[in-house]
Amino acid sequence: MNIDLDALTADQVYFRMTQTLIPRPIAWVLSENADGGLNLAPFSYFNAVCSDPPLLMISVGKKPNGSNKDTRVNIEARGHFVVHIAQRDQVRAVSDSSATLAAGDSEVARLGLATAPFEGFGLPRLADCRIAYACERWEIREIGGAPQSLILGRVRRICLDDAVATTDEYGRLYVDAAMVSPLGRLGPDRYLVGGEVIRVPRPR
Amino acid sequence: MNIDLDALTADQVYFRMTQTLIPRPIAWVLSENADGGLNLAPFSYFNAVCSDPPLLMISVGKKPNGSNKDTRVNIEARGHFVVHIAQRDQVRAVSDSSATLAAGDSEVARLGLATAPFEGFGLPRLADCRIAYACERWEIREIGGAPQSLILGRVRRICLDDAVATTDEYGRLYVDAAMVSPLGRLGPDRYLVGGEVIRVPRPR
Repeated sequence: MNIDLDALTADQVYFRMTQTLIPRPIAWVLSENADGGLNLAPFSYFNAVCSDPPLLMISVGKKPNGSNKDTRVNIEARGHFVVHIAQRDQVRAVSDSSATLAAGDSEVARLGLATAPFEGFGLPRLADCRIAYACERWEIREIGGAPQSLILGRVRRICLDDAVATTDEYGRLYVDAAMVSPLGRLGPDRYLVGGEVIRVPRPR
Repeated sequence: MNIDLDALTADQVYFRMTQTLIPRPIAWVLSENADGGLNLAPFSYFNAVCSDPPLLMISVGKKPNGSNKDTRVNIEARGHFVVHIAQRDQVRAVSDSSATLAAGDSEVARLGLATAPFEGFGLPRLADCRIAYACERWEIREIGGAPQSLILGRVRRICLDDAVATTDEYGRLYVDAAMVSPLGRLGPDRYLVGGEVIRVPRPR
């Protein structure tokens, strides 16, 4: 079928895009509320952007009432946040952390998630995530007619579970993706889990 | 381990980011060379950005010699391009299409890939991809010290293989991700394939 997006509502467009642009990585974002409590929410419009400086992007929509989500408010106000790569055994907590709570109500506390210090950084990280990025706000840009907040973050540090890291014969650090078991986001209530890692020699 | 990115080179940062920010969807981008030939290249710094208008982002690095890649040159010059979701049975062609050819040399022709008309759009699409987006250039922005081109494209149409589409009891269109079998990008030579689709009821 050939779908003309101009003939659809923004909600329908969103649904088509989330069904087809797959698999999306999940940024499980921890940020700091004004009262010091910890906010946590998942976003799948997320990827790396460049290496010099190391930037990642997260596109954050609005709350159902049109106001800014806490993640966006907190990153603007406090300037730092932690992005985790969500993994298979966390899928229920990831989904539950997408619920809209009252501002200041902490998903981390409500879901009973353990945190640990992020060495060299001013915010904690989720203790059970195998990969976490310590990020500083680089830029926030409103984009679109029903605006999303396109957030660029500068990655300062990566916390990586030693158990999923290996070093090859050239001394290069590799991550065992099968052990990380990252969630791939599909549609609104679907995730891609598991899978097989294959290697394909690069051309040249 | 706790990795301080300020202590690494841009190449090392790139390697760490591509190992850890997983799984990344692959934009297999078809664009038009100045002579009308078809360029094809894969990019995994790719995702949706917003729905109104429907925008996607692709971040494109430079060639080893520092010049712009053909994809970037073509999108700037011609204004339109097609993004395909690469699938498992295409992994070798995806990898091979990342080789640097002389400008104007067509990966589509060299790899023997079949094309089909993209109804309502001025460029063809790869016939064997189950999902393709007809895109117009929205914005190209240079970002970073060894600049990448952050390309925003407006999606005009989606071509979706009827065989992977289902409609639920509420008339919503779902894509069977297992049938699409999209590639997830990991490190430089690794891909995540297969996997299981799970549903998690949304909170609220």
